[in-house]
Amino acid sequence: MRLGEVGEFGLIARLRELAGPPASGEVWAGDDTAVVRAPAGTILFTTDIMVEGVHFDLSLTGPEDLGYKAMAVNVSDVAAMGGTPRRAVAAIGVRPGIEMEWLERLYNGMRECAGEFDAAVVGGDVSRSECLVISVALIGNPAGRLVVLRNGARPGDAICVTGALGASAAGYRLLRAGIKDRPGLVQAHLRPKARVAEAVALRRQLPSAMIDISDGFAADLGHICEESGAGAVVDAAKLPVVSLDGVELDCDPLELALHGGEDYELCFTIAPGRAEAAAHAITEATSTPVAIVGEIVDGAEGMKLIVDGQTKDLEAKGWDHLKS
Amino acid sequence: MRLGEVGEFGLIARLRELAGPPASGEVWAGDDTAVVRAPAGTILFTTDIMVEGVHFDLSLTGPEDLGYKAMAVNVSDVAAMGGTPRRAVAAIGVRPGIEMEWLERLYNGMRECAGEFDAAVVGGDVSRSECLVISVALIGNPAGRLVVLRNGARPGDAICVTGALGASAAGYRLLRAGIKDRPGLVQAHLRPKARVAEAVALRRQLPSAMIDISDGFAADLGHICEESGAGAVVDAAKLPVVSLDGVELDCDPLELALHGGEDYELCFTIAPGRAEAAAHAITEATSTPVAIVGEIVDGAEGMKLIVDGQTKDLEAKGWDHLKS
Repeated sequence: MRLGEVGEFGLIARLRELAGPPASGEVWAGDDTAVVRAPAGTILFTTDIMVEGVHFDLSLTGPEDLGYKAMAVNVSDVAAMGGTPRRAVAAIGVRPGIEMEWLERLYNGMRECAGEFDAAVVGGDVSRSECLVISVALIGNPAGRLVVLRNGARPGDAICVTGALGASAAGYRLLRAGIKDRPGLVQAHLRPKARVAEAVALRRQLPSAMIDISDGFAADLGHICEESGAGAVVDAAKLPVVSLDGVELDCDPLELALHGGEDYELCFTIAPGRAEAAAHAITEATSTPVAIVGEIVDGAEGMKLIVDGQTKDLEAKGWDHLKS
Repeated sequence: MRLGEVGEFGLIARLRELAGPPASGEVWAGDDTAVVRAPAGTILFTTDIMVEGVHFDLSLTGPEDLGYKAMAVNVSDVAAMGGTPRRAVAAIGVRPGIEMEWLERLYNGMRECAGEFDAAVVGGDVSRSECLVISVALIGNPAGRLVVLRNGARPGDAICVTGALGASAAGYRLLRAGIKDRPGLVQAHLRPKARVAEAVALRRQLPSAMIDISDGFAADLGHICEESGAGAVVDAAKLPVVSLDGVELDCDPLELALHGGEDYELCFTIAPGRAEAAAHAITEATSTPVAIVGEIVDGAEGMKLIVDGQTKDLEAKGWDHLKS
């Protein structure tokens, strides 16, 4: 049945059914607002919007993956503050001709991602719209008083990165080319794994700054440098560049790792004496590898990349979807 | 300058400037998430999306009014739970050809509305989009342990309504007809006043159920009845129908009051012995009139309207923008 036949209230009723009973002491969909438990002190609050034709192409992604990713990009932002995701609301704009089943699958994808982190979708809004848009807002708990901002990096700090870089950008290119022999890369693009457990494992090591890699490693490290008034020197040989051996793609893996974006790995800085211990703590807790890729330097030095013994400028360029 | 020239990071920098410094102990725009203070216990959490061509027409509304309303509809939801709004994030999709100045005016409208209620816009996201969409998510504080849900109405309870009904729908029709002699009605449509102070003044009187009138009085009273398993009898003569005397509109004021929608007044139910005191408390605190318009009855009786001594069915029909 199509959404236009079900109508707003039929849709709300169906989504309440799918969501199941609320957590104890909470009120989820079906009232003017959701009522959710919050810890005393501070909470994390974020929103990310995904728009058809800009962030996704329905000929390349299905509704479950789309819902999953719309949630994952928000969860990743909470992880990048050292926090854990708790409750989300989702505002969606869809063409009324859409099938209810498709919309249910989209919600299931959001719920699947939230559920992996013990979070939940507790409400939302749906409107008719000529273009499909999914806007998730998420609240999360910080780690006690500790919130890891972007502005704490200090000269001498080690620069660390979880996982591998460039996998999402490579997966996107494979999807577009219709090449199906590297599903792992395609999954990295369609269903990024937010690094919540990694951020939790890192807490005791007190990182000085952290960001999730959405715009691209260089652009996001650039955000840390800008907010911290610092510079950076990165050793290309130490970057965890995704392997594209045997993949028929005409692109430079290092370029994808630096500027590809959407990896949703964590980039953090930390006092150099604690970097090895931090990497070890994360890998022991989660099996996710951590690479120490460079050092924070004085702001006047800007961002540099060492490639084959040569030092060159590292441009903080990334994907700017607003620039036409 | 156009947004496409300014780019995402230029935009973020400008919006941070406009937002001013964050409240003490908080972090607003510029990091992965905002960090905001929350009371211990529970918080209210809601989102509402507004889409061009569905919720607004740019030939009839300016950016300040649009931003104001996008915030007001969320604030109204928090008021309808008996709470006060605190912090909002806004996800916006816009055509890249849009002027930065226009977008700044939109933000200023959102901030103006939030500021009226001692709330603030603390972050957000902007994407390119072929259609203009504004999705605000808002957290608010409940009144201690008291949260006023839709499901608490009991037979015998009085049904009360703040302000006047039908003003927004009349204002919309005047706007479309280009009639400018009743600016108050047009303002009711473009800049609805969320009834936060009214909800606060009502707290001590312990309303049994409450909703804000967004879909239309009949539809929203219908939501209370459905959630409470109750019915309702409404006296048309007591409804605070907006006066359209002298207005050249070919419409029935009662029809607009019942089904027009977007009034953002509060409809609440309350034990009959406290209804007069509740109305008095609200009017004394805010000058907003409160009308006692009917009575909750057994669910089997459905919803009835008494007009000129005749009792007829009151259909819970409202605006369903998903139905094509």
